[in-house]
Parts: sequence; C-alpha cells; structure tokens
Amino acid sequence: MARASKREDLAQAALAQFREHGFNGTGISDIAAAAGAPKGSFYNHFASKQACAVEALGRYAQSLRFDILTEPGRPALERLRAHFEFLSQDTARGGFAGGCLAGNLAAEVADHVPEIRSAVRAGFGRWSALIGQALAEAQQAGELDGALDAAAAAVFILSAWEGTLIVARADKSPAPFDAFFAMVFGAFLR
Amino acid sequence: MARASKREDLAQAALAQFREHGFNGTGISDIAAAAGAPKGSFYNHFASKQACAVEALGRYAQSLRFDILTEPGRPALERLRAHFEFLSQDTARGGFAGGCLAGNLAAEVADHVPEIRSAVRAGFGRWSALIGQALAEAQQAGELDGALDAAAAAVFILSAWEGTLIVARADKSPAPFDAFFAMVFGAFLR
Repeated sequence: MARASKREDLAQAALAQFREHGFNGTGISDIAAAAGAPKGSFYNHFASKQACAVEALGRYAQSLRFDILTEPGRPALERLRAHFEFLSQDTARGGFAGGCLAGNLAAEVADHVPEIRSAVRAGFGRWSALIGQALAEAQQAGELDGALDAAAAAVFILSAWEGTLIVARADKSPAPFDAFFAMVFGAFLR
Repeated sequence: MARASKREDLAQAALAQFREHGFNGTGISDIAAAAGAPKGSFYNHFASKQACAVEALGRYAQSLRFDILTEPGRPALERLRAHFEFLSQDTARGGFAGGCLAGNLAAEVADHVPEIRSAVRAGFGRWSALIGQALAEAQQAGELDGALDAAAAAVFILSAWEGTLIVARADKSPAPFDAFFAMVFGAFLR
C-alpha cells in the first residue's frame, strides 16, 4: 500500500486535534507531533493554522454522510432521520465527546477569524440546503404539511442539531438526542 | 458610590473575556489587565482559571432574564417567547457576536475540564426546567397540545436556541433567529 503523503498525515491529525482540543487549545506542535512530523514541516504544507483549520472543516464535512440525504428510492423523511441517526450513533460511540467541528469552531473563533467563519457559514449553508431539499421532497410526496416553510425549517433543524450536540456534550448522555428525535420527527414534522 | 471590590472587577472582566475569546483564548493576564489589576492579584481571589470560569457562568446566568419565564399574570407561551426575544435582541445588539457563554464553554472545554462541564450541565438543567414548567402551564391553560412531552420539548427548545446562536454567529445575520421563532412558535408549539 502506498504510504499517505506527509501533508495527508498532517491534515488528518489536524482534524482530530482541532475537534478534540479546539482551535486555541491546539498548537502547530501538537498537530505535527500527532502526525509524526517535525514541527518545521507544517509550513511546507499549510500557510497558517487558520488555513489548516479550513481544510480540516472540509475533511470533516466529508465524514457527515450527506449522501444519505439524497439516497434514491427512499422516502425523504426516512432519509433525513437516517442521516441524523448516523450522526447521533457516531457521537454516542465517541462518548458524546468531540461535538461538531463546524459548531465548535463557530462557538470558539467565528468572531475573530474571518476565514474560519466563512468556511463554517458555507458548510452550514450547504448542509441546510440539503435538509431543505429533503423537506421539499417530503412535501411533494405528501409526507409533510405543504404549508411549512421548508428553507426555514431546514435552518431550524440544523440549529437544533448543533445545539443538541452541545447540550449532550455537557450532559454526557443520550437524553438530548432522544429529545431531538422525538420532537423533530414526532411533534415538528407532521 | 462605594467602589466595587477588586474581586468584583476581576469577575466581571473574566465574564467578558471568556465570552469574547473563549477559555483557552483568555489568559489570566488578559483578565487582570481588563480589570486594571496586577496579574499576581488574580490568585488572591480565584483558585484557578477554571474556578473563575465557573463563577463567570453563574454571573452570566443572572443576565439571562429567567424571571420573564415565571412572570405572573401573563400567558405561559407569551412568557416563553418574550424570554427568547429578549435574548435574541441582546445578541443582535452585540452584532451576533459572543454567543452563549455556557454553550461556548461546553463546545470548547466540556470534554477536558470537569468542573466547567458540571457547571454548564447544572445551568442547562435549571434553564430547561423553567422552560418545561412554562410549557406545562401552557398545557394546563389549554394553550398547547397536552400530548406533548413538556420535559423533552424543553430540552429540545433549549438545544435549538443554543444551536441558533452558533449558526447566527457564523452567519452574522438574524435569519437563524427568524427561523427559530417561526418554527418554535408557529409549527412546533401548537
């Protein structure tokens, strides 16, 4: 098997370090050490810690199984639920730690690092557009009240998800996830 | 007017610094400088930066106008809406910056600082209990579907609020708040 490039090692290590320790809690030396690379080599591959965090966000997004939201031949609300169930099981397996890298970076540094804020904003925009599309398809199929504003509902569901991760991280329990599923798929989307 | 004690100055400065820069982004020297105190005096008043953050959380909670949730002589859902409208106007006035100190600290350090996690967890618990009480009162008054699980709905609404602050912080716009109010008070609570 071909050995992954040093840049690849650094980017993967950065994703894990930023998710576990936050932006200010992660030093370039931590990323380099986790990748088994000399600290000086970091700047051969990334212009700055900020630029590296933006790349980590892109890689993180690829792990979120957005493909479930558009899976052919499956009812739209079932796809929506399966997407969030995948994410919730992933979080539970990790002991409710880590949260969402995008939400974490927004909460920690969105006010101070414009390039990270832009990347988080774009990521949330793509995610809520996919959720909104699933909701619109559910409306077309008669699965969901056609009077609901699908775009606003999508922003709300994404926000509720991000907050559920935060509350579960403080609680270290599945209760906030249970409330999310019962409320979104029981009381809200009907 | 009696001059506030140096401890009071430090605690107020800590609240503002932690909210703006996060836990790891705030040094004890930043707190001391913002309070106009020598750095060495910090440990005369606080055992650690962690203990200071726990006190900042308590002070932050006092600014959240929980009193609106229990205001006598006002319909329960109107109280709930007025509480979140106060918070949303406060956030808009601050340029959608700062977010919720409890949510920020949960996202940044809940996995690593047990005393901060405990304080955030207790704060979220008190807050969702008050929301749940308002929902139960709305059910008793016939304002709200009695079949809704008020305790789970309260955790969900608090989670949605925390996430709305995060998405608005990335977006720097009122759109996530508009979605929160339209969905919670239009589609969800009925």
